[in-house]
Amino acid sequence: MQTKYLLDESRMPKFWYNIQADLPAPAPAVLHPGTLQPVGPDDLAPLFPMELIGQEVSTEREIEIPQPVRDVYRAWRPAPLYRAHRLERALGTPAKIFYKYEGVSPAGSHKPNTAVAQAFYNQKAGVKRLVTETGAGQWGTALSYAGALFGLQVEIFQVRVSYDQKPYRRAVMETYGARCVASPSRETAFGRSVLEKTPDHPGSLGIAISEAVELAVQREDTKYALGSVLNHVLLHQTIIGLEAMEQLQMADEWPDVVVGCTGGGSNFAGIAFPFIGHGLRGGAKPRIVAVEPAACPSLTRGKYAYDFGDTGRMTPLTKMHTLGSQFTPPGFHAGGLRYHGMAPLVSHCRQLGLLEAVAYNQVECFEAGVLFARNEGIVPAPEANHAVKGAIVEALRCKREGRAETILFNLCGHGHFDMSAYQKYFAGELTDEHYDEKELAMALAGLPSVPA
Amino acid sequence: MQTKYLLDESRMPKFWYNIQADLPAPAPAVLHPGTLQPVGPDDLAPLFPMELIGQEVSTEREIEIPQPVRDVYRAWRPAPLYRAHRLERALGTPAKIFYKYEGVSPAGSHKPNTAVAQAFYNQKAGVKRLVTETGAGQWGTALSYAGALFGLQVEIFQVRVSYDQKPYRRAVMETYGARCVASPSRETAFGRSVLEKTPDHPGSLGIAISEAVELAVQREDTKYALGSVLNHVLLHQTIIGLEAMEQLQMADEWPDVVVGCTGGGSNFAGIAFPFIGHGLRGGAKPRIVAVEPAACPSLTRGKYAYDFGDTGRMTPLTKMHTLGSQFTPPGFHAGGLRYHGMAPLVSHCRQLGLLEAVAYNQVECFEAGVLFARNEGIVPAPEANHAVKGAIVEALRCKREGRAETILFNLCGHGHFDMSAYQKYFAGELTDEHYDEKELAMALAGLPSVPA
Repeated sequence: MQTKYLLDESRMPKFWYNIQADLPAPAPAVLHPGTLQPVGPDDLAPLFPMELIGQEVSTEREIEIPQPVRDVYRAWRPAPLYRAHRLERALGTPAKIFYKYEGVSPAGSHKPNTAVAQAFYNQKAGVKRLVTETGAGQWGTALSYAGALFGLQVEIFQVRVSYDQKPYRRAVMETYGARCVASPSRETAFGRSVLEKTPDHPGSLGIAISEAVELAVQREDTKYALGSVLNHVLLHQTIIGLEAMEQLQMADEWPDVVVGCTGGGSNFAGIAFPFIGHGLRGGAKPRIVAVEPAACPSLTRGKYAYDFGDTGRMTPLTKMHTLGSQFTPPGFHAGGLRYHGMAPLVSHCRQLGLLEAVAYNQVECFEAGVLFARNEGIVPAPEANHAVKGAIVEALRCKREGRAETILFNLCGHGHFDMSAYQKYFAGELTDEHYDEKELAMALAGLPSVPA
Repeated sequence: MQTKYLLDESRMPKFWYNIQADLPAPAPAVLHPGTLQPVGPDDLAPLFPMELIGQEVSTEREIEIPQPVRDVYRAWRPAPLYRAHRLERALGTPAKIFYKYEGVSPAGSHKPNTAVAQAFYNQKAGVKRLVTETGAGQWGTALSYAGALFGLQVEIFQVRVSYDQKPYRRAVMETYGARCVASPSRETAFGRSVLEKTPDHPGSLGIAISEAVELAVQREDTKYALGSVLNHVLLHQTIIGLEAMEQLQMADEWPDVVVGCTGGGSNFAGIAFPFIGHGLRGGAKPRIVAVEPAACPSLTRGKYAYDFGDTGRMTPLTKMHTLGSQFTPPGFHAGGLRYHGMAPLVSHCRQLGLLEAVAYNQVECFEAGVLFARNEGIVPAPEANHAVKGAIVEALRCKREGRAETILFNLCGHGHFDMSAYQKYFAGELTDEHYDEKELAMALAGLPSVPA
């Protein structure tokens, strides 16, 4: 038997939690790539509406969730928290395992928490069109959904290899009314320049970002939207942890360990930051564990340094754990975790000793995901399988040590659009992917030099 | 803005509603195909555990939902009821549109409502293995999920053409630990006999049923499970309508019209029977509208007659609206509605004038589904699109007539595993499918003759 802890709607948080208010030291400034001086709001204005830029740098602890955003959230929020009784029994652990489930959103992941907020602020600022990039498609799906609800046109540059291989994801985005373009495309100068050199280029997230940014800068009525990494994106995700706190109190529990998977860092920050902040303000401090893919291990193998957010070196420079913007992650299945860098705020917390990081390979993560599905009934997304794996490792440690700890993890999405990966797993065709050590060394050597 | 009506867990129904208690005349008896005499419990004992056979013929109004079943239900139940404010505005209708959403179950449809119950009763009776058939895979997924939770081995004969074309659905079933076999298979005498004649036979639901039944009868520890049509299956689905009643009362509403899509009849009965029963006991009587695919129109074009449940003519004879067991529905996308017959209890209600039936083609249903997705954020399954279409037709009638009626429909599942159909729709490649009038006439002429 599972136990479900469902908050009454009246108790859905009315504020996001901003960890910048509680950090013992502020995160390093974001730098202009040309001047190497801190960027100001005006530098970002072509890309984002002013309210989001304000959230990017705010040090206010609580930022109100606008009523229209809460009205949309209520379609699936408060999201359930489950106690995984069956999984605990299957593992024979004395630990109590709780998971917050974000797959109940219409887009099937945590991404709408920020997509809806971003669509709202853009609409309010008079923006007519949002452009973005997507790889596997979770983010593109969420922004398409949010755009439909706020009457915004959404245009998505999808990495060509995903565009061709995952037509179903594209069909979801089109169902929500978005326009999906294979990147590199002929619709931007940058896309055309890539295609001239390599007509059959498979695309990359870096190229897709450059195309989206180019369009956003060109047109007055168009802005850019990003699904992770940035401070305001992480902020919007904190509703996950805030709800989980209230739900754990319903269960009379408090976590000893909080686990999340990390790609760009947004779902992890969503569950972890409220708990980290609670600790910073003098409350009980759970251990915080970030789980990343061994094939793209920015937190465990990357360098903490200033780097570009994209391969095309067009974005501002942020200080983060990075594998180098020229590093190409191998093609493992958790597409949402295939990013060379880590959110600056997550990286900063790591530097401050506020969190731990571990890395696992994909086969062991799918094993964990299948065990989870057979006991808890939910088929996790490949990204979420990393969090499941992390939680299981902690539960088995508790078993060895005979400790009845309370473990909380974030199940950030379902795997309904990723069944080809499970299919390969069952066919015995799924293997671990490994990056090239030499390529990593080169990418790290190529980091931009920024005077201290 | 949507409004969500969520029942507190404590108000989740503890009883299923059995319409057989309230019908003014009992449904015609089920006949043994050999003797043409009414079947008794012993005839069905090789296939089903005694408690399910008892439910099949019970006339008790309320049948208790066993505690272990309720414990599993709670993973996703009570399911939400939504008021579709956005869709209403998009249609410009004075009608209030409510929908009950069953896609929140781990299997993504209403099917687990009965799969979990069937797994429970079988486990209680000492059964070790359940066999069933599946076409598109909704039912197979639900039974795999339920089997995993109750420690039952699940074996699924999947129609070969679906097995080959929909490997992702199979991957879900395998993730839950079920074994999936392409039908016709070499594992049964019947399957082998088909393959001998036609080695590359694409399979059919009828053949898959015969294979599953053959295995169930052969082995002491094995029973058969059916996902629709039978009385006990419809009974388990009534939790949908019972919850909706309570939720509408929260909203201070009562429906003027209740709409559901019909294939075998189980999700339709689930939402409709509690309201029909309420009317039969003297309460307010909403209009009840069954929406079926125009390409497989058993209620609107079929004959009310005794017929076999399968193409192989191995099942008992039931009186129902049927297109003839030899009728092959064309290959439209709502695989869950491709059945030649209709649940005997739904058919009986139609005969008693307790419900209306309409039929729509698939392109207009997908149009309705896309409009729904863009306004309500949920991408419906192709089956559910028929209910959406039916509700929209009622809402537009209200607009013409200037009536602020209250419409309730059942959104029985999401379309995450059916995006290839949406893809075809957006590519302009989706067309209406039509059955062959001559084939229908022949199938109807071939109905078994049963003396009145």
